Amino acid sequence: MTQNIYDTEGFFAGYSRLPRSQGGLDAMPEWPNLRAMLPDLAGSRVVDLGCGFGWFSRWAREAGAARVLGLDVSQNMLARARAETADTAIAYERADLDRLDLPAASFDLAYSALTLHYLEHLDAMLATVHRALVPGGSLVFSAEHPIYTAPSTPHWVGEPGHRTWPLDDYLKEGPRSTDWLAKGVIKQHRTVATYLNLLIGLGFAIRCVEEWGPTAEHVAEHPEWADEVHRPAFLLVSALRS
Amino acid sequence: MTQNIYDTEGFFAGYSRLPRSQGGLDAMPEWPNLRAMLPDLAGSRVVDLGCGFGWFSRWAREAGAARVLGLDVSQNMLARARAETADTAIAYERADLDRLDLPAASFDLAYSALTLHYLEHLDAMLATVHRALVPGGSLVFSAEHPIYTAPSTPHWVGEPGHRTWPLDDYLKEGPRSTDWLAKGVIKQHRTVATYLNLLIGLGFAIRCVEEWGPTAEHVAEHPEWADEVHRPAFLLVSALRS
Repeated sequence: MTQNIYDTEGFFAGYSRLPRSQGGLDAMPEWPNLRAMLPDLAGSRVVDLGCGFGWFSRWAREAGAARVLGLDVSQNMLARARAETADTAIAYERADLDRLDLPAASFDLAYSALTLHYLEHLDAMLATVHRALVPGGSLVFSAEHPIYTAPSTPHWVGEPGHRTWPLDDYLKEGPRSTDWLAKGVIKQHRTVATYLNLLIGLGFAIRCVEEWGPTAEHVAEHPEWADEVHRPAFLLVSALRS
Repeated sequence: MTQNIYDTEGFFAGYSRLPRSQGGLDAMPEWPNLRAMLPDLAGSRVVDLGCGFGWFSRWAREAGAARVLGLDVSQNMLARARAETADTAIAYERADLDRLDLPAASFDLAYSALTLHYLEHLDAMLATVHRALVPGGSLVFSAEHPIYTAPSTPHWVGEPGHRTWPLDDYLKEGPRSTDWLAKGVIKQHRTVATYLNLLIGLGFAIRCVEEWGPTAEHVAEHPEWADEVHRPAFLLVSALRS
């Protein structure tokens, strides 16, 4: 099964202190871009793949979803999601997304935020998602951008004001071990082409692709993000099950 | 109009000496990947956007195309293309692709190899191509990969055996001046997302995306390409006019 780093004590404590863990969707600078990719949720059935603390699951209900299934591998995340949710139309279940099972043609939207880059068996997971969507249903996801996950030494080089991102191994897909909040967090590096061709091969139509980095306004508000304009941190994709 | 660097004496002389200028399609290591993206050409009408010496235009005829229109801005290139072509079903015409005009619904395939990254008005050019294709027609192109065109200092860093590509300015679209065969060759940097979203916005369905770098077999044959495995040099896209 995929490494369940979120149930590691040190990692979870660190993760829980991140702005995006405390401030929810509005603390995710890429959220407005992801939100703009979403279909109308009125009356829809939504699956939230890697639901974490349930921020999106609850937002989807406020946006009109009829019911939401939030899935996560982390018991810690699910416990907090359940504690913060008082809505019987939202169900949280534990699931290893690398062995995902969903009923066919049962969702209008599959949503996933910053989760897919942890999965070893993305092809099988996306096939399950395709089958679980109704025709005309949408998949909207964010993942760490392949430019971000690729390098053997993923740290900025150079001085403030002129930093570069030392890209290598972009075309070498497979696991990357990084030290983020904890030692040895395993992510799966894939190219942009692989993400898109997997979707196309399953019969998804690509609707929109974004390579997200902060705007000048973001940097004015968060000077610590200044380097981030040089390479996209996140890949955002919207696709339609035809 | 777009910089016509190919009609600069020094550049053209250098370009003419490149393996891909002397050996044609088989000297382009990415050609098998591009070829695999092409539709069946039997009886088709083809436009070759940035036809250069006419290698692809002639190949398309051998592959069964009924007629081919090769367009290029360079008089030097067109002169050699005409000199090397004895086939009345191939027409070569001079055209500034930044001000492209083509008759509507008159082509089954639009092909372009390593040309689009020179264009300032890619959006208008792609709109013209979309209109010029019949429904069901294909656009297949290669361009310099955005990871390749982005950096302010596009030179490998480090020692042989562990080089990195100093990525910066990826999200800053616009002109890049590089010294390749001549000083001040102007290219237009765009992100992968921009290429794809332009196509999707026009009504193209993305069929396949490739980020091309040499395989282990290529490097065994060309040890001088060893660094090139670290970042894709070319972006290859196949799209369908629906």
